[in-house]
Amino acid sequence: MSSNTRKLRFGAGLRGPGGNMAGWRHPDALADASVNFEYYTKLIQKAESGKFDFAFIPDGLYINEKSIPFFLNRFEPVTILSALAAVTSRIGLVATVSTSYSEPFNVARQFASLDQISGGRAGWNVVTSPLEGSASNYSKAEHPVHEKRYRIASEFLQVAKGLWDSWEEDAFVRNKETGQFFDPTKLHRLDHNGEFFSVQGPLNIGRSKQGRPVVFQAGSSDDGKDLAAREADAVYTNPETLEQAKAFYKDVKTRAAANGRAPGDIAILPGLIPIIGTTEEEVERKYLEAANLVTIEDALNFLGRFFDHHDFSQYPLDEPFPDLGTIGENQFRSTTERIKQLAKEQHLTLRQTALRVTTRKGEFSGTPTQVADLIQKWFEEEAADGFILGEAYPGALGDFVDQVIPILQERGLFRTEYEAATLRGNLGLPYPVNRYTKQEAIHK
Amino acid sequence: MSSNTRKLRFGAGLRGPGGNMAGWRHPDALADASVNFEYYTKLIQKAESGKFDFAFIPDGLYINEKSIPFFLNRFEPVTILSALAAVTSRIGLVATVSTSYSEPFNVARQFASLDQISGGRAGWNVVTSPLEGSASNYSKAEHPVHEKRYRIASEFLQVAKGLWDSWEEDAFVRNKETGQFFDPTKLHRLDHNGEFFSVQGPLNIGRSKQGRPVVFQAGSSDDGKDLAAREADAVYTNPETLEQAKAFYKDVKTRAAANGRAPGDIAILPGLIPIIGTTEEEVERKYLEAANLVTIEDALNFLGRFFDHHDFSQYPLDEPFPDLGTIGENQFRSTTERIKQLAKEQHLTLRQTALRVTTRKGEFSGTPTQVADLIQKWFEEEAADGFILGEAYPGALGDFVDQVIPILQERGLFRTEYEAATLRGNLGLPYPVNRYTKQEAIHK
Repeated sequence: MSSNTRKLRFGAGLRGPGGNMAGWRHPDALADASVNFEYYTKLIQKAESGKFDFAFIPDGLYINEKSIPFFLNRFEPVTILSALAAVTSRIGLVATVSTSYSEPFNVARQFASLDQISGGRAGWNVVTSPLEGSASNYSKAEHPVHEKRYRIASEFLQVAKGLWDSWEEDAFVRNKETGQFFDPTKLHRLDHNGEFFSVQGPLNIGRSKQGRPVVFQAGSSDDGKDLAAREADAVYTNPETLEQAKAFYKDVKTRAAANGRAPGDIAILPGLIPIIGTTEEEVERKYLEAANLVTIEDALNFLGRFFDHHDFSQYPLDEPFPDLGTIGENQFRSTTERIKQLAKEQHLTLRQTALRVTTRKGEFSGTPTQVADLIQKWFEEEAADGFILGEAYPGALGDFVDQVIPILQERGLFRTEYEAATLRGNLGLPYPVNRYTKQEAIHK
Repeated sequence: MSSNTRKLRFGAGLRGPGGNMAGWRHPDALADASVNFEYYTKLIQKAESGKFDFAFIPDGLYINEKSIPFFLNRFEPVTILSALAAVTSRIGLVATVSTSYSEPFNVARQFASLDQISGGRAGWNVVTSPLEGSASNYSKAEHPVHEKRYRIASEFLQVAKGLWDSWEEDAFVRNKETGQFFDPTKLHRLDHNGEFFSVQGPLNIGRSKQGRPVVFQAGSSDDGKDLAAREADAVYTNPETLEQAKAFYKDVKTRAAANGRAPGDIAILPGLIPIIGTTEEEVERKYLEAANLVTIEDALNFLGRFFDHHDFSQYPLDEPFPDLGTIGENQFRSTTERIKQLAKEQHLTLRQTALRVTTRKGEFSGTPTQVADLIQKWFEEEAADGFILGEAYPGALGDFVDQVIPILQERGLFRTEYEAATLRGNLGLPYPVNRYTKQEAIHK
């Protein structure tokens, strides 16, 4: 795949006030941004004006009094994206929804509905809910272990895709003269009976302009990568370095190929949290303005969330990062492994690790040209097919759209107009033909 | 309660092309209305221009090849109303969601999110899913029996209301100077452990302008009326006659009083499917144009749905309505009882019963003044606090808004401007103070 045929993709992570865990305290931040519909409207319209492929809403299903502010009070992804569908026309709408604590029929149906409402712009970021505490909100005695969660996710996704094929594209005839509303040979019951789910179908909504919602996957563990390679159209990842990103990219594309998929069938999209300034000094000033909002107590608390709400205040701050054994390995597995590895390799103290995790200044910081150069490098060296942008400070998305996007457009790396009406079309992904349409239609 | 202080309430049922089961065939109907977002936008904006209290979306969780066209391919209620929140500003948004096949945490959260997005305009029509087949879409061996479904619904609703009290009104302090995001004494875990659900909480979204979503209930069985009398803010009902409506009204208000509730705490809202014309002939022409679209085969099929998908084609059409024993009594109980009673009392044949159920011409048909008179009569005789309007033909909502609403406004029975920004405020319902705010706040 040469860079002549590939085009960059961009997603905009919408996450309340943005920034680090103390982002709401930034002088320019709207402190109530996470539940402010007008704010979300403005942000997504800015992303759409920059021809972003999609907006992306993260999620979580458990909080306690130690959770960071953004997690405590925020919109549910499907509802906020449905509302945002009405104030946008081309940008994709990607909602995070868990497969561990939902019913496949409800989830498949809500995404199909969002897909119809938006004219084929829906995407589903499939997650398995890392937090143990989630079980306590869902009448469950225990949180499924990591491996089991991914088996559930895999079957859940198969059921959803099956339900999305309930109706062939041209099933709805709607002939007022004859009274025929649909062609019964183009309606298909799923009759799924699996390890975790039994779902008969059919779904009570038809296919959308893009066939079915685009599937995103965000786990970077082996289980997560396998699921992505088999089932996902796009993968979100969070590498620390270019080398890590290239290794991940190659790994997932290789796994996808082993499943008979072409490189262009799955887009690899690392996170990108740029700090953009006209000078190095401005970049540093913007960085410090955000980083200095985080207290060490907040940082330890945030770190604890990845490790099963472990209390890090019991350890000396300026000694090496403590040995945690297996704590947290059933939750954010790839994240906890990365943190432990980072502390070990760079000989970081607990204080350094906590601040590094909460206030990291990513390498995508600099002048618009420097940021564009690095994006181009990652893209051309096959570390990324595109990026999902997070705001390091209020207004970062606007800076990127106004200052970096035009450079990438100028270089022919990014679109100047949307190519398609659907998210799938804009991402350049193949159209998923209904499974029954290829063969002779069987009406069960 | 005198008619001086009471005001009429109106809801607009949004139901695709409207009309009877063959409504999509009407010459003026958009055949794809049930999945046409522009159409829903136009309808709800028309209702809002008529100062309707709310739009109302029905729902169902099971279809098969015999289901009526509207059920086969339609928007999911929460997603479509979230989208419609963005194109309206004052009208309430009431979504039907089942308590039999959802998780309380997910449902409470989505409604709270819709409530925040819309600035306090969300309503939840609590249903228990009458159709046996629903179980087969949700990995369940069997559909819970009627009485059990209502016990589940009652506990589900208690959990949802508990989650909606997770945060007191003023819990989010958001003090940028001190770094205090919330007041921990105003955050409350639910710790619910009941017969069907164990939900710890807290919910990860705060209260809305109206405190919490307005709760609607639509079942007319004894179990349904008891649930409504205890828990609901508004009740949808479908009486055949004024006498039935008055009996239902008195029954529910009496049950509510037994639960310590005032008459104004619960609104009784019968269905209203008017046919409006300038002359009796025009009304009759409009009626026949819609009714004649329904074939007897379609009508028998539709009737069968209420009776566990019973095959009525096996009976002679022009003999008395057959004895069905207990068929269907675990599903649409109040509806099947009403149909059987109707056939018996009026000595109807199967053909007459099927056509009566599918193409009934309601008594709210006539000139605008006649319709307004009857509405006033029902309202003043305490058969109704207001109505939920269904479209008997394409454009019926528009006719009602343009021709009947002005008469009711002229008579001082209906608002000329919205009184409040929230659904609860417009319905004149009391604000539900957070359970923890009255007493000394307990931080668990």
